[in-house]
Amino acid sequence: MPSSMENGEDDVTLKILYCGVCHSDLHSVKNGWGGAKYPLVPGHEIVGVVTKVGSSVKKFKVGDHVGVGVIVGSCTNCENCKQDLENYCPKMILTYGSTDHDGTMTYGGYSDIMVAHQNFVLKFPDNLPLDAGAPLLCAGITVYSPMKYYGMTEAGKHLGVVGLGGLGHVAVKIGKAFGLKVTVISTSPKKEKEAIEKLGADSFLVSRDPEKMKAALGTIDYIVDTVSAVHPLDPLLGLLKTNGKLVQVGLPEKPLELPIFPLALGRKLVGGSNIGGLKETQEMLDFCAKHNIVADIELIKMDYINTAMERLSKADVHYRFVIDVANSSL
Amino acid sequence: MPSSMENGEDDVTLKILYCGVCHSDLHSVKNGWGGAKYPLVPGHEIVGVVTKVGSSVKKFKVGDHVGVGVIVGSCTNCENCKQDLENYCPKMILTYGSTDHDGTMTYGGYSDIMVAHQNFVLKFPDNLPLDAGAPLLCAGITVYSPMKYYGMTEAGKHLGVVGLGGLGHVAVKIGKAFGLKVTVISTSPKKEKEAIEKLGADSFLVSRDPEKMKAALGTIDYIVDTVSAVHPLDPLLGLLKTNGKLVQVGLPEKPLELPIFPLALGRKLVGGSNIGGLKETQEMLDFCAKHNIVADIELIKMDYINTAMERLSKADVHYRFVIDVANSSL
Repeated sequence: MPSSMENGEDDVTLKILYCGVCHSDLHSVKNGWGGAKYPLVPGHEIVGVVTKVGSSVKKFKVGDHVGVGVIVGSCTNCENCKQDLENYCPKMILTYGSTDHDGTMTYGGYSDIMVAHQNFVLKFPDNLPLDAGAPLLCAGITVYSPMKYYGMTEAGKHLGVVGLGGLGHVAVKIGKAFGLKVTVISTSPKKEKEAIEKLGADSFLVSRDPEKMKAALGTIDYIVDTVSAVHPLDPLLGLLKTNGKLVQVGLPEKPLELPIFPLALGRKLVGGSNIGGLKETQEMLDFCAKHNIVADIELIKMDYINTAMERLSKADVHYRFVIDVANSSL
Repeated sequence: MPSSMENGEDDVTLKILYCGVCHSDLHSVKNGWGGAKYPLVPGHEIVGVVTKVGSSVKKFKVGDHVGVGVIVGSCTNCENCKQDLENYCPKMILTYGSTDHDGTMTYGGYSDIMVAHQNFVLKFPDNLPLDAGAPLLCAGITVYSPMKYYGMTEAGKHLGVVGLGGLGHVAVKIGKAFGLKVTVISTSPKKEKEAIEKLGADSFLVSRDPEKMKAALGTIDYIVDTVSAVHPLDPLLGLLKTNGKLVQVGLPEKPLELPIFPLALGRKLVGGSNIGGLKETQEMLDFCAKHNIVADIELIKMDYINTAMERLSKADVHYRFVIDVANSSL
């Protein structure tokens, strides 16, 4: 939100009810990507209830449940913006830690109130739980958008999801909703039971087991790689069939090693993707509502956030913390 | 060809007229990729005249001009073969240095005669010069196939060709034939004049010039990267627009560094590709015939081959040696 709390004619004011705790929040708080400006209020998986709308706002009314995700502004004029790809606008304004149009800093959803331009506010579908649905606004769109763009949605095809955290567990559910066979690829064998029984994955592959990795060579059509640590791509590329596609949605700070032979010999590709545009984010919310997809969450109060961040840094959460903002004393 | 020179019922015997000298030949002779088996007869850009056909051969007759490219066999049954992607068949048989169906070694086009299965023989279009057309059988299809597969053919879009050697100079011509704006990206400024005046490129970008590279950020839609030495991808990814695609057709032996942030923030992809299937190779030959595309060659006699290899290793050729086999004493 802009530091100014005034509700302009195109703005929507919302009372924040829930906010997901994304790994980016932890990263930003610790200035892991550099460039953080303090004070910094994180939070970009925001669900709230509208308390005020400007005179030009037609899409929303007081009392509506709405969402705000990772971006709250863009130039609206560039080639990307014109194609509903505000998420690739060079001037996009992040929900927190960015400089807004008026020169003030934006502050995120670890807060009780927010003002946002109506074009960056999403209708929150009625049947989507407000708390467990909140993480879809970042984690959901981050995996949904590349699956659509790279054509990783053909029913019956085989999807590998690498890493079973906030992004990965949603990718499993979205993959199943597209009718894919889903294999979770993880370093920790202890996640197998939960991946299959709770999240609905079809199979589980321990990436540290050379025998099983060998047996799985050339069996997967698409991979969504959610790992943000530096890790080898070579074994993953080996799992792909001819024409296989790997989308890297985890964001390692350092380059990954890309071996060219496996890429060439199987006409494979490695692609990037960054959240999604507003139109597609709405489409994703509606898709998740239709297929009853939400995140698996641990609901916390605001005063638990430092402990939550600590636990998140150790991957000690199944699978997303969500702050119960409205019931926390701020 | 199989070591047995017998012409089976599905085989075509050809008198070899011309054979291009591909960088792979040099690499194989020196066992740069490992696994070379000697004696080794290189050559997979072969043009010849049919001298004999088997009883089941309907497509070709004695006297026809034909081509043989990089592969002479595949399993014919796998998923890839069924989709005319023999070039991704796990059992594909390379034109030289592979084990043929009968257990013998295959020998390539630095030779006077060849026997090949009709399915791996191509009709050489009438108006395509036999000598300068030969390199299309590897260099041509290597750049044509990924441009088609990755959708890098939309007229008016901007193609960058990295490296101006055997592959690169054909990529420039094919790019122009697709109606693209073509920029050659090279380390050597002295290639500019030739790239523009002789090959028809629209512009030239010296990759070692930081000012010009900066000015070109975000201006290119597609990149065909023909460089086979290890090189940084980061500056090239920076040249791409949102949704930009880079296809790596040069084959560095060691992995390249792939930075994930530029990939994510512009939804860019890096893809691989390996020659093309037989159907597409025929399509490419016909396309080149229609658009008068041939390689720029230096025609040599067989006894010059060692000098040619030496010069090739120093990139001292504009842009492909072709052996005038029929007029060489073997």
